[in-house]
Amino acid sequence: MKKFINDPASVLAESLDGFAAAHSGIVTLGEDRLYVRRARPNPGKVALISGGGSGHEPLHAGLVGHGMLDAACPGQVFTSPTPDQMLAAARAVAGEAGVLFIVKNYEGDVMNFDMAREMLDIPAAAVTTDDDVAVETSTYSTGRRGVAGTLIVEKVVGAAAELGHGLESLRALGERTNRATRSIGVALTSCTVPAAGKPTFEVGEDELEFGVGIHGEPGRRRRAMAKADEMVGEMVAAILADLGTAAKGEAILLVNGFGATPAMELYLVHGIARRLLESHGISVARSLVGSYVTSLDMAGCSVTLTLADAEMLAMWDAPVHTPALRWGM
Amino acid sequence: MKKFINDPASVLAESLDGFAAAHSGIVTLGEDRLYVRRARPNPGKVALISGGGSGHEPLHAGLVGHGMLDAACPGQVFTSPTPDQMLAAARAVAGEAGVLFIVKNYEGDVMNFDMAREMLDIPAAAVTTDDDVAVETSTYSTGRRGVAGTLIVEKVVGAAAELGHGLESLRALGERTNRATRSIGVALTSCTVPAAGKPTFEVGEDELEFGVGIHGEPGRRRRAMAKADEMVGEMVAAILADLGTAAKGEAILLVNGFGATPAMELYLVHGIARRLLESHGISVARSLVGSYVTSLDMAGCSVTLTLADAEMLAMWDAPVHTPALRWGM
Repeated sequence: MKKFINDPASVLAESLDGFAAAHSGIVTLGEDRLYVRRARPNPGKVALISGGGSGHEPLHAGLVGHGMLDAACPGQVFTSPTPDQMLAAARAVAGEAGVLFIVKNYEGDVMNFDMAREMLDIPAAAVTTDDDVAVETSTYSTGRRGVAGTLIVEKVVGAAAELGHGLESLRALGERTNRATRSIGVALTSCTVPAAGKPTFEVGEDELEFGVGIHGEPGRRRRAMAKADEMVGEMVAAILADLGTAAKGEAILLVNGFGATPAMELYLVHGIARRLLESHGISVARSLVGSYVTSLDMAGCSVTLTLADAEMLAMWDAPVHTPALRWGM
Repeated sequence: MKKFINDPASVLAESLDGFAAAHSGIVTLGEDRLYVRRARPNPGKVALISGGGSGHEPLHAGLVGHGMLDAACPGQVFTSPTPDQMLAAARAVAGEAGVLFIVKNYEGDVMNFDMAREMLDIPAAAVTTDDDVAVETSTYSTGRRGVAGTLIVEKVVGAAAELGHGLESLRALGERTNRATRSIGVALTSCTVPAAGKPTFEVGEDELEFGVGIHGEPGRRRRAMAKADEMVGEMVAAILADLGTAAKGEAILLVNGFGATPAMELYLVHGIARRLLESHGISVARSLVGSYVTSLDMAGCSVTLTLADAEMLAMWDAPVHTPALRWGM
């Protein structure tokens, strides 16, 4: 295992300390590193809180700030955060307007956010993301997995929360955005969890995992490496098949690197995906390309498509000021 | 070689097409893909043009936009761009105020930018960056190599150019910023150039290359893998030793990933570097952490320190709107 770490047991704490120091104008680390919150909380609005296992950075802590999350709860690597983290975060940033949890669909995450929601004495609701079309049920999830589309839900709902929308309206917008979103990923290599010290799975020099999850969970099939046109063609086809006749209109396209795939390749993938979508009659109205929802040091990428209505596009365009996404201010 | 590509011969063109499509509001691809320029050129100011071999994305094309470069000339992977690219770029974006080339110190780049400068019929000057303290002369350079510090020079000079500073003043500011900047990098793995199809160099499972160049050039020594504290300690010590008694005051700290190192590790490195610098009496006034000056799919990172005076800090903070760096607007 070749990583910049001191000790698997302290990697999360040390990384969070470095993150908070780098972005001290935007975020503050909570007591005992239970959560990351905005440096300047705004308790008058509905608080948006997300979280999940670490190793997917910049998701979620890198998306805390004006126009997106109010706080994020980082679990240990690939491990759900605990209800006490969510409660501490809610107490730090939420007021009477309530709190909306944005939860990726993994059993541990859903269970712990549910427990936190029941223990809160302010209005609380949740949106669960399940955008991964690869498989219907997986290692850690009942139903589809929540993956890179979660970023789009957080951006859209975050902008609406900033405008003062109420809890129920935000929950409905989040669910609508999730339903309009589809993702699929491929892995060229495994990731290595620091505490395990060895690759999560094996993949040969001439093969890839099609439909991989963001923890290295199995996807649809192991297939031979191929040219980018063929790989991306199969990814886009999987998304379009899942959308069926809904696959039309304007869209947000996110090409997301898993951690070890360089920008040069991600932009090449973006070019192919965009061309295929447009030849299918979908207008790619907005694009985001980069490593935003990662799987530690996995080489690979995912394609996410959101069929965006006018409100979603407006919320996407709204100002945002977080460590990882920043525009309009 | 496991990459998202179709053909080594077309990887640059396809990646540029995807890049230009993703950022069409900010950049435009020049004819025959000779250069990337701002979508909205501002010919009244001194034009800032950089470029170099591709494979270091987002440097340089991702730094074209308001507050930074006016144009960038992408060579083939790890290959200098040609003088006709630089001339075409200058003709597209420069006016009577002239053009300043920002050139990383590699023999091919320096020679070709020199040729372009001599062929131009408008005022033209150049700043050559050589921030890498690893070695005094290298595979492709006479003198020190220009590496991640180039981004800081481009940001500082770019902001001053936006304010209307003249060519000579910008050249002097660029040289001052370069002289205040030091970098050192380590590689945990090699990169693989698409046209070569195999790793540029070999590095064992238990070793790293200390002082590596951004094309995989040899550094100071091959050493055993170690804990992050020890690796980063040696990096910071190399920078401080080179600065000598100048190592004090306020600084900009850039922790830069080489392409395959995830954010979690980069932030951990940032935390260590920052602590070491501050214990040495240097105040880390600004931070940037991410993969900005990459070496294709190399795992590793570099640390860059700029001892910044008040003007440099003000220029660093000034608004910027490029694909890869965006703040204040």
